[in-house]
Amino acid sequence: MKNPYEVAVLVGSLRKDSVNRKAATALVRLAPSNLKFRFLEIGDLPFFNEDVEARETPAEWLRFREELSASDAVLFVTPEYNRSVPAVLKNAIDVGSRPYGASSWAKKPAAVVSVSPSGIGGFGANHHLRQSLVFLDMPVLQQPEAYIGGGWDMFDEQGEFKSDDTRAFFKSIIDAFGDWIERTAGTS
Amino acid sequence: MKNPYEVAVLVGSLRKDSVNRKAATALVRLAPSNLKFRFLEIGDLPFFNEDVEARETPAEWLRFREELSASDAVLFVTPEYNRSVPAVLKNAIDVGSRPYGASSWAKKPAAVVSVSPSGIGGFGANHHLRQSLVFLDMPVLQQPEAYIGGGWDMFDEQGEFKSDDTRAFFKSIIDAFGDWIERTAGTS
Amino acid sequence: MKNPYEVAVLVGSLRKDSVNRKAATALVRLAPSNLKFRFLEIGDLPFFNEDVEARETPAEWLRFREELSASDAVLFVTPEYNRSVPAVLKNAIDVGSRPYGASSWAKKPAAVVSVSPSGIGGFGANHHLRQSLVFLDMPVLQQPEAYIGGGWDMFDEQGEFKSDDTRAFFKSIIDAFGDWIERTAGTS
Amino acid sequence: MKNPYEVAVLVGSLRKDSVNRKAATALVRLAPSNLKFRFLEIGDLPFFNEDVEARETPAEWLRFREELSASDAVLFVTPEYNRSVPAVLKNAIDVGSRPYGASSWAKKPAAVVSVSPSGIGGFGANHHLRQSLVFLDMPVLQQPEAYIGGGWDMFDEQGEFKSDDTRAFFKSIIDAFGDWIERTAGTS
Repeated sequence: MKNPYEVAVLVGSLRKDSVNRKAATALVRLAPSNLKFRFLEIGDLPFFNEDVEARETPAEWLRFREELSASDAVLFVTPEYNRSVPAVLKNAIDVGSRPYGASSWAKKPAAVVSVSPSGIGGFGANHHLRQSLVFLDMPVLQQPEAYIGGGWDMFDEQGEFKSDDTRAFFKSIIDAFGDWIERTAGTS
Repeated sequence: MKNPYEVAVLVGSLRKDSVNRKAATALVRLAPSNLKFRFLEIGDLPFFNEDVEARETPAEWLRFREELSASDAVLFVTPEYNRSVPAVLKNAIDVGSRPYGASSWAKKPAAVVSVSPSGIGGFGANHHLRQSLVFLDMPVLQQPEAYIGGGWDMFDEQGEFKSDDTRAFFKSIIDAFGDWIERTAGTS
Repeated sequence: MKNPYEVAVLVGSLRKDSVNRKAATALVRLAPSNLKFRFLEIGDLPFFNEDVEARETPAEWLRFREELSASDAVLFVTPEYNRSVPAVLKNAIDVGSRPYGASSWAKKPAAVVSVSPSGIGGFGANHHLRQSLVFLDMPVLQQPEAYIGGGWDMFDEQGEFKSDDTRAFFKSIIDAFGDWIERTAGTS
Repeated sequence: MKNPYEVAVLVGSLRKDSVNRKAATALVRLAPSNLKFRFLEIGDLPFFNEDVEARETPAEWLRFREELSASDAVLFVTPEYNRSVPAVLKNAIDVGSRPYGASSWAKKPAAVVSVSPSGIGGFGANHHLRQSLVFLDMPVLQQPEAYIGGGWDMFDEQGEFKSDDTRAFFKSIIDAFGDWIERTAGTS
């Protein structure tokens, strides 16, 4: 058993003060000691394009794929844009899945947390992302499902939880993910 | 009744020789006379980012929104990447949907054609895109569903159909879209 | 233009005091005068089975298909079971779609309202049902999307809305559906 | 480590000569020795209905829940009806998930195989079912994805595979499921 596991964190919003980034940071703070985290930059990745791939692989793609390959698991924290996954996160999915036959995602356990202002909590983005993770062969944490609604009011100015219930829910997510990684990482 | 209708064409692949672009071109050639087409560039749009929006709207976003607003309907022709919509097309969706309350998509009739090498024909991308179009309030053509598989062999070197059956299927799609536009465009 | 239009109402819950049935009844009460409604029984339909179809069509299937065929449009009001459509409603979809080539659903405008206790408001059931309606060739109302959460507290003991805002939202749904039917019914 | 694991098999078609049943039987024959199978009857389960649940639980529901609870894992083999899960299978999902707080599905590893005549291979049903399995907390095999198209020609009159490639693909599915069960069963 490897310990600690390195978990790549991908945030689906590029906003500096993104509530998704705050939620990801909060999850990291609450994590069990068998997990170590690294936030990956995805906002600078050029759009995936097979013509570009055939000419010369962009340095940003190479860097991202290397960081991903060095990770044992992936935590996705994402808003919902137009009932689906934000383009910047979908592009990271596409870039990391290539070149054909050499995906950097394969076999890495994943968790999907969606955060949005409405009560629906990013359900649409959450499940669209899960459909991609089937193709990418990533075992995904099923419960607790994490559709975080009303995200705008969750944190105080220091990024601390306003509510103990919310804090406990976040703790249950990252603890379950720690167990899931123990069970499914790196054994294929 | 307006005639002809201006139809924006969005292609989900950036490849120069994309089979999706060829499929879109073939649909345009077969279209009834009440439709006029314009291919919109989406590969140069910076990722949607609310911080950027708050500072200064990129010129590419403005151009794209203006082109979209000048259109009566939208034809989407897209591959499937990792069982969902390519990032470049999802980004166009997101850019066109903003700023909040001033979406450039609203009420425009749409058709979704997915083209992929496997037999599944981009079913996953096709329906994920449809979920976004619900939110964007775009009436979508339901039949014929267009999951085009084995796309790599459809056209000869001049971009003409190798098979009369395939040609007839494409004709049925664009004819049905012409009727759908007549019925649902611009009346809201 | 036909007036009034006959709208079949299908409720996805079999509970006698179902909040979905109450929501459907509330929508009917608020409807514009160009719509007339008929609640269809779906709880007595035997499971679809091609062997049964080949032997002798059950009387309940025949009755349901006739009622459906006599309708101009369909209003679906449904809870979510296990993140998807309740079996009893999916069975009605399957029974009405047969025999092959003689679907009773084709071309009828539809609206999908989902009602559930959680904030998510049946989003999963709502969009799964929409995917079936693509295949069935039913033009579907896109906006307002109707994910009704917290459904248990919406009505008082007389089935009246407790909140004027909720009432106004329901009114906006059924009014939009009336317009949608005017635009898309019976013209194919 | 338990050996062998008991795997419940649920077939989404009620037809006696269902190609889905044949596909399920073929998977069972090819299975590794750590798996033992039991086909569960689902065609006799009354529709889930909370009023019925409140009065007296039908004997068929009780039997099904007991059989399910006695299993270590679940293999789903299903056709696609109207781009989604057949009602008879969705009803089994709903019946097994109740009563509230006492689901018979929780934590059991699952695999989803969809079989349909078209090239799309039941992709729509496959992923709709997967969405339910998230809620039910069942770890699902991701790869190989099993969208079996052209199902009608796969088997000869003895139910043997006509093609060695198809046979090898089926073998790869059930072997991967065996590994998945070893890794994820019964440890929560």
